[in-house]
Amino acid sequence: MPEADRPMPSVEVAIKVQFFDLDPMNVVWHGNYARYLEVARCALLDRIGYNYEQMAASGHAWPIVDLRIKFVGPLRFGQEALVSARIVAFENGLKIDYLIRDATSGAVLTRAHTFQVPVRMDTGELCLESPPDLTERVRGLM
Amino acid sequence: MPEADRPMPSVEVAIKVQFFDLDPMNVVWHGNYARYLEVARCALLDRIGYNYEQMAASGHAWPIVDLRIKFVGPLRFGQEALVSARIVAFENGLKIDYLIRDATSGAVLTRAHTFQVPVRMDTGELCLESPPDLTERVRGLM
Amino acid sequence: MPEADRPMPSVEVAIKVQFFDLDPMNVVWHGNYARYLEVARCALLDRIGYNYEQMAASGHAWPIVDLRIKFVGPLRFGQEALVSARIVAFENGLKIDYLIRDATSGAVLTRAHTFQVPVRMDTGELCLESPPDLTERVRGLM
Amino acid sequence: MPEADRPMPSVEVAIKVQFFDLDPMNVVWHGNYARYLEVARCALLDRIGYNYEQMAASGHAWPIVDLRIKFVGPLRFGQEALVSARIVAFENGLKIDYLIRDATSGAVLTRAHTFQVPVRMDTGELCLESPPDLTERVRGLM
Repeated sequence: MPEADRPMPSVEVAIKVQFFDLDPMNVVWHGNYARYLEVARCALLDRIGYNYEQMAASGHAWPIVDLRIKFVGPLRFGQEALVSARIVAFENGLKIDYLIRDATSGAVLTRAHTFQVPVRMDTGELCLESPPDLTERVRGLM
Repeated sequence: MPEADRPMPSVEVAIKVQFFDLDPMNVVWHGNYARYLEVARCALLDRIGYNYEQMAASGHAWPIVDLRIKFVGPLRFGQEALVSARIVAFENGLKIDYLIRDATSGAVLTRAHTFQVPVRMDTGELCLESPPDLTERVRGLM
Repeated sequence: MPEADRPMPSVEVAIKVQFFDLDPMNVVWHGNYARYLEVARCALLDRIGYNYEQMAASGHAWPIVDLRIKFVGPLRFGQEALVSARIVAFENGLKIDYLIRDATSGAVLTRAHTFQVPVRMDTGELCLESPPDLTERVRGLM
Repeated sequence: MPEADRPMPSVEVAIKVQFFDLDPMNVVWHGNYARYLEVARCALLDRIGYNYEQMAASGHAWPIVDLRIKFVGPLRFGQEALVSARIVAFENGLKIDYLIRDATSGAVLTRAHTFQVPVRMDTGELCLESPPDLTERVRGLM
């Protein structure tokens, strides 16, 4: 099967909305979703075996340069939701798509993506290609 | 001058990067920018005279349905920055563009936008047109 | 067995340290522990059947009026910890003790307590005694 | 004048309560006060000339080992408050007392303290005495 047709690595994590995430409208404050996305992203990077520690060991930081979140419906106190994260591109940076769904009904509540790029920690230089440390691990899971 | 050519209301607020906003890479964690944007957005809404309290008084909540942040350069401890917020559309929801620049050099560090929509607090119904409470105040400033 | 000798309701929840909780020293920023405590406190209140929604239904808010956290050792990225919460007084307000321990070694990392008091939501009046909605449920679990 | 009678260094900073700090009770969520305290603490450390960067340069981290906050009254949206921070001990660690007051009425809303200790960054060893880098600078301001 050609690489482009193989399924990309993905994960799904469960979250439960906490009181501290709510705003006066009794829904999760929009800025707090970045934490939900990160829980899923880190679970995905763990699965790839290329999380924060392996990034540092490979001499790269991976700052997020683009974050987009579309809020379809609110999240409320105690609500259980599933956050899925799926790699959609990894050769020249790492693009991840996210979906937050209600754990019971499956209704889509949020769509999001992040794009992050490799930066050499010694020189601060932006790398146009992802290091093999990432690409080989991702291909190994495809 | 036709309305389309008149300058839209805008504000600029100064922020100083605090320790609690930093991550282990010694830069502001990307999710914390939502707070910087909100400081500017609320200053803009204050200027229009249509902030959280007036929204509530007019019977509308204004949830953010789209957030996009492009991170051009990092923000570091103690750095002083200017966050500008400018209305770019207000008739069918409220779209605001943001720019974060270094206070000294003026270098652009972040571009962002938010889009929020009016929802009737009594029925939970989405309004396709912004209520006159907002549009008349915005026009009064143009 | 006299009430004073009976064990008080308690719970234990598992947490995993996320990247967004870390500060530049690569440990959890001290202010973020309030979220860990609240996860355990809400699990405890769920067990009692007197969480945020039942509080509101009983006409009381329960603001925290005292928070103390003693940091014995740091929490690091990816670390798994157990947060226990135990009621230590409930007749005139609700006092809860917390312990955060490393999930593997059991080493105590944090000791904390919160004290919160019932306030009538209609009048804003502080109640010197806890409402029966709370005390009867707590006694039912002792 | 003996040292014990001389006034300790202190600062006062102004804050304005933002929307993102509020919880569903329409008051600042208790855990967010740690940020307010840190804004004042960092301003105090700036005044002493011994903030995060100088700490790192002197080879010490200064983790907070004790945090206590007593909430006297709530903080609400848009409220302006003054946060004062005052050193109360500095020879064997750094103890700071805080007071948050309403900017208009002067009413005390919060009392707090933090205690932090010097830790050698190379060995991770706790220091029982504060390094001269701190003590001499504090004495220079008394």
